Amino acid sequence: MTRYVCRLAYDGTAYSGYQIQENGRTVQEQLQRALRKIHKGREVETKGSGRTDAGVHARGQVVQFDSELKIPLERWPAALTAVLPPDIAAHEVAIVPDDFHVRYDTTGKEYRYRLLSGRQRDVFRRNYTHQPFPLIRDVEAMREAARHFLGTHDFTSFCSQKSPVTDKVRTITALEIHEEGDELLLVFRGTGFLYQMVRIITGTLVEVGQGKRTADSVPDVIAARDREKAGATVPGCGLYLWDVFYEQDIFGSGSDESGEDRG
Amino acid sequence: MTRYVCRLAYDGTAYSGYQIQENGRTVQEQLQRALRKIHKGREVETKGSGRTDAGVHARGQVVQFDSELKIPLERWPAALTAVLPPDIAAHEVAIVPDDFHVRYDTTGKEYRYRLLSGRQRDVFRRNYTHQPFPLIRDVEAMREAARHFLGTHDFTSFCSQKSPVTDKVRTITALEIHEEGDELLLVFRGTGFLYQMVRIITGTLVEVGQGKRTADSVPDVIAARDREKAGATVPGCGLYLWDVFYEQDIFGSGSDESGEDRG
Repeated sequence: MTRYVCRLAYDGTAYSGYQIQENGRTVQEQLQRALRKIHKGREVETKGSGRTDAGVHARGQVVQFDSELKIPLERWPAALTAVLPPDIAAHEVAIVPDDFHVRYDTTGKEYRYRLLSGRQRDVFRRNYTHQPFPLIRDVEAMREAARHFLGTHDFTSFCSQKSPVTDKVRTITALEIHEEGDELLLVFRGTGFLYQMVRIITGTLVEVGQGKRTADSVPDVIAARDREKAGATVPGCGLYLWDVFYEQDIFGSGSDESGEDRG
Repeated sequence: MTRYVCRLAYDGTAYSGYQIQENGRTVQEQLQRALRKIHKGREVETKGSGRTDAGVHARGQVVQFDSELKIPLERWPAALTAVLPPDIAAHEVAIVPDDFHVRYDTTGKEYRYRLLSGRQRDVFRRNYTHQPFPLIRDVEAMREAARHFLGTHDFTSFCSQKSPVTDKVRTITALEIHEEGDELLLVFRGTGFLYQMVRIITGTLVEVGQGKRTADSVPDVIAARDREKAGATVPGCGLYLWDVFYEQDIFGSGSDESGEDRG
């Protein structure tokens, strides 16, 4: 048996999230169905680097599975993509040591959130961005507020109350806000993120941009360790799991050009 | 009664096309349902500048309808968008003379076609671009071929054989090919287009870009007046009805900023 990791991109619009659940179509279910096809009906277990919620997208979800098939490594992405639905693609596949764990071995993640800053509804980006009302009018204040999140904090105020996790201390290493045309792109990098943490921080930053709260108020919200003190949770449709980091660059350099054909 | 025109944008992915038909969800049906809601259940007839096929998008479809309601003009786009599904938006509304005809009075149209020139499948653009295989490798040859389409020709070779139209002479005033990142954007402007004409010309240009036919061969294909001689019809998902032109600028200048809120 060989342990493989795969970088998956998916459009989360039609899914109830990444992880298999009793009710609802999930990305993991589609992935296991694809692997089953390749393995002539045999069930293949998969693990993901973490869950993503309903409607949330991924450019760089990483999953692992074991296989005894002798498919040349460079053929794997095309083989998988060919049997995946059109809204999921396998972009890279690599071999990892047998004791590799796609979830526990992560050293960090990058999430991105796309905000539409215009007033007009854009039918083509409705599932891929979030458009806040009232309009954002102060991006500089958002950047000022963002700086307060950097570093190591107890992020209880920015974690869904549904989360069973008890240790809510996390480290954010980068939180950048880029203006791209009529969009604001928020880039989050950190050692780990709590349930809905990116969406609650984004919701809080949106309220700063709308003038509903000040950048200066953020340290108090963090210190309160109270979910009620933070902003609203923005919708999943603007969120992307962009990259997952490991001690080693598991896919190697240049593997972005792995070149699968369309399935 | 007052005659109104409305500029509609829609994501055609979930529709069987613009025009109402017996089977299948259509944009026009959704528009009429929205107008019925605004008119308290009364049926309101609508006319479009032309049809669009299944999966084809619009940034600038123009439709007309008559109404006796006293809604201030600047409130119309928001009022309509609020009752339209999220993949259709009314971006501008204007009043036109009672004898205006949204279809017969057109002086020209602009269509755009988006081609994905990369090798990797992009899950986020699968419904908004077409990705030809084999890859396009000679954009200059496509530009050379495109020039042969300019002017007035009998476009029988580039018209679906299902079309009932007998006069197939049309004038193309512009056919530009722009490289934008990993996409090729084809911009067509002309006095009118036959059924599937943009998609068949694009399919022919793609074959030139792939090296399957030469730019020089295009004049013979036009002269043949034989659909079999032209390239394949590319899928609807890459096609956008971008703009419809009239003698007068019906929406007036600056009306792009008509500023409806989200519905």
